[in-house]
Amino acid sequence: MLEKNQTAFLSINENFSVNPRYDEIHGGNIIDYGYESGIIDFSANINPLGLSPKASEILKDFNKLKFFTENYPKNYPEPFVNALSFYHGVEKQFICEGAGASELIFNITARLNPKNVIIVEPSFYEYERAALSKLQKSKIFHINTYLSENFELKEKSLSKLINCISENIVENDVVFIANPSNPAGNITPLQTIIKILKKLKEKKAFLILDESFMDFCEDFSAKHLIAGTSLDDKKLDGTYKFDNLIIIRSMTKFFAMPGLRIGYAFAKPFLAKLLSETSIPWKITSLSEQIAYLSICDDDYILRSRLLIKELRKDFENKLKKIRFLRIIPGSANFFLIKITNESLNAKNLKNYLLECGILIRNCGNYRGLNDKYFRIAVRKKSENDYFISRLKKIKF
Amino acid sequence: MLEKNQTAFLSINENFSVNPRYDEIHGGNIIDYGYESGIIDFSANINPLGLSPKASEILKDFNKLKFFTENYPKNYPEPFVNALSFYHGVEKQFICEGAGASELIFNITARLNPKNVIIVEPSFYEYERAALSKLQKSKIFHINTYLSENFELKEKSLSKLINCISENIVENDVVFIANPSNPAGNITPLQTIIKILKKLKEKKAFLILDESFMDFCEDFSAKHLIAGTSLDDKKLDGTYKFDNLIIIRSMTKFFAMPGLRIGYAFAKPFLAKLLSETSIPWKITSLSEQIAYLSICDDDYILRSRLLIKELRKDFENKLKKIRFLRIIPGSANFFLIKITNESLNAKNLKNYLLECGILIRNCGNYRGLNDKYFRIAVRKKSENDYFISRLKKIKF
Repeated sequence: MLEKNQTAFLSINENFSVNPRYDEIHGGNIIDYGYESGIIDFSANINPLGLSPKASEILKDFNKLKFFTENYPKNYPEPFVNALSFYHGVEKQFICEGAGASELIFNITARLNPKNVIIVEPSFYEYERAALSKLQKSKIFHINTYLSENFELKEKSLSKLINCISENIVENDVVFIANPSNPAGNITPLQTIIKILKKLKEKKAFLILDESFMDFCEDFSAKHLIAGTSLDDKKLDGTYKFDNLIIIRSMTKFFAMPGLRIGYAFAKPFLAKLLSETSIPWKITSLSEQIAYLSICDDDYILRSRLLIKELRKDFENKLKKIRFLRIIPGSANFFLIKITNESLNAKNLKNYLLECGILIRNCGNYRGLNDKYFRIAVRKKSENDYFISRLKKIKF
Repeated sequence: MLEKNQTAFLSINENFSVNPRYDEIHGGNIIDYGYESGIIDFSANINPLGLSPKASEILKDFNKLKFFTENYPKNYPEPFVNALSFYHGVEKQFICEGAGASELIFNITARLNPKNVIIVEPSFYEYERAALSKLQKSKIFHINTYLSENFELKEKSLSKLINCISENIVENDVVFIANPSNPAGNITPLQTIIKILKKLKEKKAFLILDESFMDFCEDFSAKHLIAGTSLDDKKLDGTYKFDNLIIIRSMTKFFAMPGLRIGYAFAKPFLAKLLSETSIPWKITSLSEQIAYLSICDDDYILRSRLLIKELRKDFENKLKKIRFLRIIPGSANFFLIKITNESLNAKNLKNYLLECGILIRNCGNYRGLNDKYFRIAVRKKSENDYFISRLKKIKF
């Protein structure tokens, strides 16, 4: 396989594609509609408060922006990593910075080079792409969660996952789980995470836990399972130090900076250091680092965001539940996975109709384990959520 | 080796380091001295005109900057790639965008996965780091150029390179050459490049030509050797289509945007597509793409930069040549490699002395094939160059 891939470079007609059109596989392509299009983007799950006000001050400082542009970034963004360490109560040597969660997903997958990869579905498409973009492609196993279990990882799906690990996983293989999940938005409890970690540790294999949406419900983070710190008050189990756990975090969602490409990972120090040392230099721009640093230090903004989004979610959920042709999947994140229950409507039609109203939603028809009856929407500002509801109410069958 | 590397992840005490402190291996760490330090950075080779005035207008538009921050970037920066295609006269399918030249160096090296890598020295440290950061480390051969040949790749060094290719290079292996070279700043003529390409083609191996400084002397670019277009008027050889040539270009130097991380590569379409499809999504931020696009379209700025830097270089060179304890290596780029000929001074002492004068230079003592008598300085604005000269004149032995 390696040989075949390598020699392929000199033959020009080789066919290879793991990169379908992005407007079809991710939300958040509002930029393709143009700046000032006025379209309300419910397709990307970004904090409706937008950027931290303290952080956005930098965007008014022309001289600083010019300095950041005309000079090299720091190679190691120490102030940001220090701030993360303080924010999470996790020591610095467990933290590895990245140019967005995606860069970390690709870098970690390439570095571990697993023979087999299990992905709990429906989930983020980039896990699969990272596993297929490697020089030696991984074999991928998809474990579905079920509508009958509200797409939670439990009972039927959990037992399938454990069986799949037993049967297929070998040393250095990888299981990907998003927690909260995406697009379903529900939480896998720590007890379940620990059960999976133990099973994987027997095999010397890794769990990559994508906590990109965890800032919205921070209490459920598994971050202290790596270092084993700060858990004295709520012991779940005798063993906390899981050196086979890698957690990926994003600044994109909660801190509203998808355009800046910055994220980080928690991992055992050897691995965090290795990932940092084998990645490209200057990978985080100075502007990204500064804005991320100021955002993570903006306690007031963080607190306000958590409270407000919780409130907005509750209000929006209550209103959505009153729409007869929708079934809202219960979840905990800043977005909703919704199933259309009326036979004459699908997500594609709904997306087109709403686009005419200036609203962009995420058609979930191309997620594994879902179909054209599913769509995902973010919790946005109250006026925007209400406008969304008002447009739905206009639909008559 | 693969097995050893892989199993290493579960043992915490493994020792691995290919990432020495960056302030020691690269120039341009002015940001570590702090914003508004006032230090004049001769250590990074950036266009002294700074950012294109048309491009820098964006940095004054708060609403646009906020939009770029709070929304996902385009996945494929089509306007920028179109502009590059027009600027270079190279068709789009030969162009692959990257998050800086370094990202491309790492991505290409990981993808080709060469068993053996030859680096023409002294050169950019990241070629070596990319080859050593791979899962399967390459064996590296360093081919030195010589002071007696003004560090040009010719005669003695060229014959050593050709021999090294004959003896060691196998299919999919790689030779790295920077053209213009860095830190010496001289040009390897197209005839020599073609000779090397032919030799490598016999072996089905690749030449990665780093043209990061080529915008300063665009006529010498090998870009038309890949597509075979636009060369009708100056035929050098019967064969132009070298599908084993990969050219790396940077927006960092000539367009003065090291902080934004954007570059591109020219390669045969299959490889350009493969590199693009197997790399991380959203890797270029919206701000970087917009500024790069506007810069490459700013004809007036490009022309002015070329003329001005040529003039500044000539003036600076004449003045430097009058300093008795310096030997200026002849070159063509926007910087000088200089040897200190006085026995009682070395580059480290000189760097410390100049730092007290508010000037940062690049000590070249840690480049392969150089020693602590060498340093590199950029061509900057006339007043800054003159200030530099005035500080040198103060040195008495």
